[in-house]
Amino acid sequence: MPSTAKLHAYIHGQIQPLESAFLHVSDLSIQRGYGIFDYFKVQQGRPVFLADYLSRFYKSAQLMELRVPLSINELEDVLQELIVVNNLPLSGVKMILTGGYSANGYDPGEPNLIILQQPLTLPTQEMINQGIKIITHEFVREIPRAKTINYSTGIRLIKQIQAAGAADVLYHQNGVVTEFPRCNFFIVTMDDVVVTPAEDVLLGVTRKNVLEIARHKYKTEERAVTLEDIAQAKEAFLTSTTKRILPIVQVDDQAVSDGKPGTVTRELLQELIALENKLALQV
Amino acid sequence: MPSTAKLHAYIHGQIQPLESAFLHVSDLSIQRGYGIFDYFKVQQGRPVFLADYLSRFYKSAQLMELRVPLSINELEDVLQELIVVNNLPLSGVKMILTGGYSANGYDPGEPNLIILQQPLTLPTQEMINQGIKIITHEFVREIPRAKTINYSTGIRLIKQIQAAGAADVLYHQNGVVTEFPRCNFFIVTMDDVVVTPAEDVLLGVTRKNVLEIARHKYKTEERAVTLEDIAQAKEAFLTSTTKRILPIVQVDDQAVSDGKPGTVTRELLQELIALENKLALQV
Repeated sequence: MPSTAKLHAYIHGQIQPLESAFLHVSDLSIQRGYGIFDYFKVQQGRPVFLADYLSRFYKSAQLMELRVPLSINELEDVLQELIVVNNLPLSGVKMILTGGYSANGYDPGEPNLIILQQPLTLPTQEMINQGIKIITHEFVREIPRAKTINYSTGIRLIKQIQAAGAADVLYHQNGVVTEFPRCNFFIVTMDDVVVTPAEDVLLGVTRKNVLEIARHKYKTEERAVTLEDIAQAKEAFLTSTTKRILPIVQVDDQAVSDGKPGTVTRELLQELIALENKLALQV
Repeated sequence: MPSTAKLHAYIHGQIQPLESAFLHVSDLSIQRGYGIFDYFKVQQGRPVFLADYLSRFYKSAQLMELRVPLSINELEDVLQELIVVNNLPLSGVKMILTGGYSANGYDPGEPNLIILQQPLTLPTQEMINQGIKIITHEFVREIPRAKTINYSTGIRLIKQIQAAGAADVLYHQNGVVTEFPRCNFFIVTMDDVVVTPAEDVLLGVTRKNVLEIARHKYKTEERAVTLEDIAQAKEAFLTSTTKRILPIVQVDDQAVSDGKPGTVTRELLQELIALENKLALQV
């Protein structure tokens, strides 16, 4: 297992060393890939946009018929305690809720709640300056509004992404694009409208924040986006908790516009970073 | 966790008590629902159709870019040893191969191989005599030819199946049916053709055996089957390793034919049982 020296995790109702955080093989995540999770960022030792992530976590649980064993207040207390114990200024916290120990390997038991915290590396300035290439793949996630643990297709495509010299894979169905395995997708049209797919996507917290930031200056739209729309777009980018905003300069074999990161993309990133820093510093 | 007294499992390269079979939470099954498995039956202490199940297990691993850490011969030796240790005459053996302990919670590590054995209960004679009701749901499994551990949709529908007084859920897309979460589907047409869906299904071992048995006496077809075909069918049934053959007498609100188990279905079941018993008794 990865090096976990000193880190602590929450499991079986208590905070303990990560290296001793184990689940019995009867757990429904191992037996049937059944579970949900969420993931938020800690900056300067403080969670950013925590309320949004917690709300989505409980919503995902509900969509998958799982009961979170702690109330939101109890969960916030545990998170706070774990963040203090681990003392990682820039990090990511992952909350996993599994289908629990199953008596017959299929029917859910009492859900197991696991909370992990790991140091976080943000994209380098070089990645932001150069932008990334992505590939496309025909696929729609099961139950897109729920953040389930199922990444079968995304992980299976890792080698294909690497072989293409790409950084990620954008899902589409019949040419209508949706999302990446772990990120949302945006384009900026030639007349400066900031557009993101509306259907069959996870409602990302960064997606929501970027829409809010963009709305101050640009027209925004949540609607169907096609591969043809991308070919006509001025800019394209992805959003996620860990990547914030990354410019996309190539989709399969086609450059996005002039093949360079766009000015609207970079402007939105600067404003997102400013917003995160403001929140992390608030008392 | 479920009662596991006396049972043993194979994990981390050795046979040990099931109650101490744990995976670290960095395993990719827990983090990302990433893994494959297979499951075969033991009758009179002997595996039935083992070669088919092992072949599919390695095939699923290949489809999901996972390497089984044992050769087929080595795996057979471990299975034999486990079956002797557990000494369960009628049972099921499950082999799970996960994406392994992941350093970053996304990229696969060295796959973890877990082998579990549990007592098996076959369907009661009453279920066979009465037949079962099923419901339908629009869905196609990801990577249908691979037996992945992902059962998000099937397990999420458990309550809906129960609320409908049904025993299982048949997936379809635009009215073209495929399979159940854990079983294959067959109809018998009015002119006694035994038909099963060809595309987007797991290639079940019982499905294969039933096709072979049926071929001796009936015309068989692997082709697209629609909900309309079911409405016109004389009989319908499901097949699986644990259920063998179960007659289906109702689909949603519609009876199959006269709403009673069909004679071809019952005949195929008797021949399948005879074949299994013959194999289990062979030296």
